Amino acid sequence: MSSHMKVQVFVRLKPGVLDVQGKAVEHGLHEMGFGDVHSVRVGKLIEFDCAGAAAAAVQAKVKQMCDALLANTVIESYEIKVQG
Amino acid sequence: MSSHMKVQVFVRLKPGVLDVQGKAVEHGLHEMGFGDVHSVRVGKLIEFDCAGAAAAAVQAKVKQMCDALLANTVIESYEIKVQG
Repeated sequence: MSSHMKVQVFVRLKPGVLDVQGKAVEHGLHEMGFGDVHSVRVGKLIEFDCAGAAAAAVQAKVKQMCDALLANTVIESYEIKVQG
Repeated sequence: MSSHMKVQVFVRLKPGVLDVQGKAVEHGLHEMGFGDVHSVRVGKLIEFDCAGAAAAAVQAKVKQMCDALLANTVIESYEIKVQG
């Protein structure tokens, strides 16, 4: 029997990094009459299955994936959620 | 005094829609030795502040934003979280 975990990675631009896509979305929403919206930031939601029985071990492995490929840690931060 | 809510919108490609970016990420992870990863899907995480005192009213307004601009509902689904 093999076991796997559901993984979610949230990748966000760090505070202070200009979010061009967020600005465009905010402008678009204002144009459409949604003037109540502010501070729009657009990030990435990466979801996958990962083999492994222990959440802590999967979490550590996903951290490696984030540092190596999933996030550009110069300008992005990431948050990892693992569910069995 | 004005009140605002923190809004998160998760936009995902619907099941069955080919996720080219997800395939590329999965391939990259496999190439880097993370062969335990499967079913990678890449979506969007949109976060913003929205004026409003009642979560239900903000939720309804954000649903309008999703249908009008934030998601392409032909191929994408969305999930809204509102926090006071």
